[in-house]
Amino acid sequence: MLGLYYAPGACSLGAHIMLEESGEPYDPLPVNLPKGEHRTPEYLKINPLGRVPVLRLDNGEPLTENTAIMSYLGKRFGMWPTDPISEAKAISALAFFATNVHPAHAHVGRPERYTDDPAAIPSLKEKGLKTFHDLLKQADDRLAGREWFMDSYTAVDAYAFIFWTWGMRRELPMRELKNFAAHRDRMVQRRAVQHVVEDEKLPT
Amino acid sequence: MLGLYYAPGACSLGAHIMLEESGEPYDPLPVNLPKGEHRTPEYLKINPLGRVPVLRLDNGEPLTENTAIMSYLGKRFGMWPTDPISEAKAISALAFFATNVHPAHAHVGRPERYTDDPAAIPSLKEKGLKTFHDLLKQADDRLAGREWFMDSYTAVDAYAFIFWTWGMRRELPMRELKNFAAHRDRMVQRRAVQHVVEDEKLPT
Repeated sequence: MLGLYYAPGACSLGAHIMLEESGEPYDPLPVNLPKGEHRTPEYLKINPLGRVPVLRLDNGEPLTENTAIMSYLGKRFGMWPTDPISEAKAISALAFFATNVHPAHAHVGRPERYTDDPAAIPSLKEKGLKTFHDLLKQADDRLAGREWFMDSYTAVDAYAFIFWTWGMRRELPMRELKNFAAHRDRMVQRRAVQHVVEDEKLPT
Repeated sequence: MLGLYYAPGACSLGAHIMLEESGEPYDPLPVNLPKGEHRTPEYLKINPLGRVPVLRLDNGEPLTENTAIMSYLGKRFGMWPTDPISEAKAISALAFFATNVHPAHAHVGRPERYTDDPAAIPSLKEKGLKTFHDLLKQADDRLAGREWFMDSYTAVDAYAFIFWTWGMRRELPMRELKNFAAHRDRMVQRRAVQHVVEDEKLPT
């Protein structure tokens, strides 16, 4: 059985949605970030980076990094393109968020990762929020004329939804992003998404 | 025929190695970063992020993001695991570098991406270099007792080699990373790697 190390509101949300979509049983393994459970020697053995999510595979081994977790779950549960070019584009879309959008937001939420100088923090947060917003506009462009990021609902949609909720949390004018807002409206009609939004108490 | 938008010394190096490994013809498409060719309207149509590498697919479409490009090339050229779990681990290894190691280094090389305050730059560079070095140590740990990151030579090795050359460029004590240094020594025995190192004039 799969297990998911996750924290409410964190970027484990995408994997949480996928596991709910699957309808299969899984072990929810909450990690208390405010209590520092991700910094314990036990957790660092599972993920030396001290981050969520980690997917516990059937054999007990840990799988880290959302690009890997989301593509694995997408494939396993049939929410993933099957031809090689479309699959590469789906990985590219996951990586767009993982290597650009997520790090931009981390400068707003976790600026102490990037500097030891308290005086540097305000400018990091400010520029991080601007870059995060600019990249959400690029995500909105990707959705122009489409229902989902790929030709049908895939793991990319569940992953992208994280950044919608983070935009809401940062009080960005998310409804101005018409395509992304319509995507959000489709997402919250899904029962798996409704369940996770309620469980993690997310702003949508 | 595939084409590669790349720049010497940039993170297009991994894809450059893979294309040389393949032995198949491809179009090298150099992008002059000092001249700002990655910021032209033409290039931004290919990649709105204004970054290299971009893989031009056989049908002319662009594929962005190294995690997607490297996994696609690895699969196409048979330098990639075939079972689903090993494949997920290979994507995880690519993403470890793409979402952690690369952004840490970007704080050293491109701090202006993260702040508009010149006074903040020294602390960003300093912490970025420390984080980059710490993550290279994690890469070294991953190689303990292994020849390659996966069970045989894959696209992950070609990708990881970028960060070896960046460590050399930043004059980090790379030889202290015994496993990574042995990996480097294996890499530079490969003809494809030798060719690319010479072409891009890389420190190894």
